[in-house]
Amino acid sequence: MDTPRKINLQEKLALFADHWSPRTVARLNDYEIKLVKVQGEFVWHTHEDTDELFLVLDGRLTIQLRDGDVELGPGELYVVPRGVEHCPRADGEVAALLVEPEGVVNTGSAGGELTAVPQSL
Amino acid sequence: MDTPRKINLQEKLALFADHWSPRTVARLNDYEIKLVKVQGEFVWHTHEDTDELFLVLDGRLTIQLRDGDVELGPGELYVVPRGVEHCPRADGEVAALLVEPEGVVNTGSAGGELTAVPQSL
Repeated sequence: MDTPRKINLQEKLALFADHWSPRTVARLNDYEIKLVKVQGEFVWHTHEDTDELFLVLDGRLTIQLRDGDVELGPGELYVVPRGVEHCPRADGEVAALLVEPEGVVNTGSAGGELTAVPQSL
Repeated sequence: MDTPRKINLQEKLALFADHWSPRTVARLNDYEIKLVKVQGEFVWHTHEDTDELFLVLDGRLTIQLRDGDVELGPGELYVVPRGVEHCPRADGEVAALLVEPEGVVNTGSAGGELTAVPQSL
């Protein structure tokens, strides 16, 4: 077995600069812990089979939902329920931690050019 | 469906003061996101069926393993693999976020007086 190492979130965040492209930094059973930097508006999409957790580390993130916005600052988290259409938006740059099952595609059922290739750090 | 609300971690941490008694603050599929405050030494224990994620929010946490210690400060996380005996220790007070499947008992297979009753906030 590979013994896991501790993960310093800011050290990992310093290793990449592109937006909307999550990096897997740890695994927990069949879940992945990812870091992502975002800025601007993503695409409206839905994950039909899973909830999705956003924990903001730096900056301010708006998770747009069809029935209202959720505004997250550092140290605030939100779980988007499965099947709920959402669209993240960030006026400035945001760093966030995501928790979701292995294999979740960032654009969910929407697809398109912002669909990220799985990457680990 | 209950629409989840955003969770401000520091606001939730202000709601309790006892040690070694995790509070569930959010759910993600069949996983729970918990906050815990700890100080002193816990008990050596193992979770045979699941990995366990610790993300330190405040303070410095030592996760003692049989083959060495992992030292975590704020913004550092560690996943204890299933089946690996461990014993958290904190010289000062530590606040941490845990991610683990529903129903995980804090003392794992060890039991004893530090076994916590499930609580939500």
